[in-house]
Amino acid sequence: MDDAARARIAESFAAQSMMATLGATLKDVAPGEVTVTAPILPGSRQQQGFGHAGLTFSIGDSAAGYAALTMLPLEMEVVTAEIKVNLLAPARGEVLIAKGRVVKPGRRLSVVTSEVFVVDQGTETLIAILQGTMVPVPR
Amino acid sequence: MDDAARARIAESFAAQSMMATLGATLKDVAPGEVTVTAPILPGSRQQQGFGHAGLTFSIGDSAAGYAALTMLPLEMEVVTAEIKVNLLAPARGEVLIAKGRVVKPGRRLSVVTSEVFVVDQGTETLIAILQGTMVPVPR
Amino acid sequence: MDDAARARIAESFAAQSMMATLGATLKDVAPGEVTVTAPILPGSRQQQGFGHAGLTFSIGDSAAGYAALTMLPLEMEVVTAEIKVNLLAPARGEVLIAKGRVVKPGRRLSVVTSEVFVVDQGTETLIAILQGTMVPVPR
Amino acid sequence: MDDAARARIAESFAAQSMMATLGATLKDVAPGEVTVTAPILPGSRQQQGFGHAGLTFSIGDSAAGYAALTMLPLEMEVVTAEIKVNLLAPARGEVLIAKGRVVKPGRRLSVVTSEVFVVDQGTETLIAILQGTMVPVPR
Repeated sequence: MDDAARARIAESFAAQSMMATLGATLKDVAPGEVTVTAPILPGSRQQQGFGHAGLTFSIGDSAAGYAALTMLPLEMEVVTAEIKVNLLAPARGEVLIAKGRVVKPGRRLSVVTSEVFVVDQGTETLIAILQGTMVPVPR
Repeated sequence: MDDAARARIAESFAAQSMMATLGATLKDVAPGEVTVTAPILPGSRQQQGFGHAGLTFSIGDSAAGYAALTMLPLEMEVVTAEIKVNLLAPARGEVLIAKGRVVKPGRRLSVVTSEVFVVDQGTETLIAILQGTMVPVPR
Repeated sequence: MDDAARARIAESFAAQSMMATLGATLKDVAPGEVTVTAPILPGSRQQQGFGHAGLTFSIGDSAAGYAALTMLPLEMEVVTAEIKVNLLAPARGEVLIAKGRVVKPGRRLSVVTSEVFVVDQGTETLIAILQGTMVPVPR
Repeated sequence: MDDAARARIAESFAAQSMMATLGATLKDVAPGEVTVTAPILPGSRQQQGFGHAGLTFSIGDSAAGYAALTMLPLEMEVVTAEIKVNLLAPARGEVLIAKGRVVKPGRRLSVVTSEVFVVDQGTETLIAILQGTMVPVPR
């Protein structure tokens, strides 16, 4: 990936105010693979005090979407057509790490997956898997 | 539903800091049906300025989960096992309304759906449908 | 719907040898809504003797796909991009009835749902709900 | 895995008449991983002559379910609570291979995935991914 491609993704990520609200950061960006992380902020919790499913979903979806975007021409954006999350364990810890991956790129549809991990005192645990479809749209 | 059941749900909702972060409000609570609304806050947007999929998901999931909780004994909570969202249109407007519904209650699993609408200058448009599974857990 | 539209759908259904293997029949065809039924044949069962999830899926998917096709020009076909099924109860009875419905038609994607019922000695029970995405393709 | 565990799975598979109708075979059985294959029979096709999505779903679901069963006590069976399939490419070829895998085993719920490949003149292509939830039930 060249600098223009990376800059385009960083710019799109920065334009999502939800990512700032959740404290999320765009980490590794490689062809077909993007990592997004977020702390479990005091304002991102469910009723038992763990990270909210909405937080897990948001960064899992975002990592998957930007993974799809790495495989598309610079003038395109993506939107989520559909995505499903299976939650495996509570988000108990300090930070979430979402690793998005393209399974099948396409001009009309890209099929993607994400794995979301929680880091608790240095130990990473898989807490969610996502599987979905991204649709390329003009920027 | 009696007052204790309603109070239990209101209390659980209030304990979710994510709902406060998103400005979400618990509205109608009836047996098997719960409505949650949220404004599209400046901090809840995606890169084109519309409501973020994470917002749509969060209140859709929440409405569905509390719909499941209305059918369970007072000493239980629910957690989301899995849920899928199909996004139908951009969240362009002022407020989202999520209507959760129990399709099949159960002691081990409850199957639920949600419809999420956006209100734009008085017009309601369906923007997402969700289908998922809630698991009862001890409170 | 005119006769040409109905004939097109009947022809496509008849061309699916899997539907014949399962004994499935195309029933009501209306704009955005299609019903497909199938007996629970001796060869369509799971290990407990009830109808197999593959049978439920196949006719639920088919009803939803043809519902999408009712909203498209005559020269198009649809293929399933993705679909999810929640199974609510065993397929215990004689016949399955799948009712497909278009939630959001579209030139690029159609979002669809299906409900599948089992008929057991005259009593209809909802046993599955499906939610998915159909993609129009040239015939 | 011991012989009793393997025999139990073979017996359950053999009791599914749908698997015989589709010509499906139980192949490799290892802890948390099961492979099921099926030819694309003349009676398992969709309207364009390729393998039907119902075939892909049926063996993908079956491989995932038996993968879950490998991690459970001998007196248990599993049923599918929900499963989603994303179809990536047409099932154009001679044989399908479904590889099921347990992502998260559990006494109440097991989260599983499957990959389904088509073999066309010796070339394997990934045509579908599935993600779902299996529920242990008494045998």
